[in-house]
Amino acid sequence: MIVLGIDPGYALMGWGVVESTGSRMRLIAYGCVETKAGTPMQHRLRTLQLGVRDLIEIYKPDDVAFEELFFARNVTTALMVGAARGAAIIAAAEYTENLYEYTPMQIKQAVTGYGKADKKQIQQMVKLLLHMDTIPKPDDAADAIACAITHCQTGPAKAQFLMK
Amino acid sequence: MIVLGIDPGYALMGWGVVESTGSRMRLIAYGCVETKAGTPMQHRLRTLQLGVRDLIEIYKPDDVAFEELFFARNVTTALMVGAARGAAIIAAAEYTENLYEYTPMQIKQAVTGYGKADKKQIQQMVKLLLHMDTIPKPDDAADAIACAITHCQTGPAKAQFLMK
Repeated sequence: MIVLGIDPGYALMGWGVVESTGSRMRLIAYGCVETKAGTPMQHRLRTLQLGVRDLIEIYKPDDVAFEELFFARNVTTALMVGAARGAAIIAAAEYTENLYEYTPMQIKQAVTGYGKADKKQIQQMVKLLLHMDTIPKPDDAADAIACAITHCQTGPAKAQFLMK
Repeated sequence: MIVLGIDPGYALMGWGVVESTGSRMRLIAYGCVETKAGTPMQHRLRTLQLGVRDLIEIYKPDDVAFEELFFARNVTTALMVGAARGAAIIAAAEYTENLYEYTPMQIKQAVTGYGKADKKQIQQMVKLLLHMDTIPKPDDAADAIACAITHCQTGPAKAQFLMK
């Protein structure tokens, strides 16, 4: 099973592609889709949409796993991050019904075995689980990989569809 | 010039199509795109995307005018309404570069001449300006029509591109 993990963001949207075969996992690729501050919103959202579309066309994931957002500094930020997330969901939904979401706590639990692990612990475990030489950078990409790992370990059966 | 006005919402997205010729305006159509509570988010966002896409294919607007959101009850709501707005912007951006936004105050000012007008005053003026027999329903559609009127009166030259 190939899983595309996405950490939705407006300026920087992290992504990671992980393949799982039984209990083995392999990192295929990871990175970020970037959008430039100061450019019109329609261009930024379109960049995110086309970025996700490209990833799906290239890696043909079976499932797409989103990190659930439920925090934002304020309502204005939430409206923008929400729009970015909407763009990514729509891009993915054009290709597949298999969209899932995980809360940060579920991801921490799945990756480190501890629901209150910090960012560094998660990144260390991502590196270890996927036999990487270094910690994946930037943080947004590491988060997306962690989300994909979570889906590989949880499996679609127990996963939550995107409901909010 | 044909203008599609959109009042972005998650459960109910209002829309209105207005044609302006010189200083004359004519209402072509209006309504709402509805999404059902309790269904997966990807379906709801896709319904909004396809709804806006259909409107653009049917009415071929020159410009699309969005009511700017900058209020939401809380961050959770803002994330969802933001996603709905993102879906609508992306659907429109596939067809045109001409996306604009207006704050509620700009809309009130343009439609009633008074930046602090209430909902009822705006709806009365929408009815009057477009020679309608009754006030357009629901409120979301009336808001979208008011947004389209604002763009007709302001003109693209003075309008703001979507920047946030």
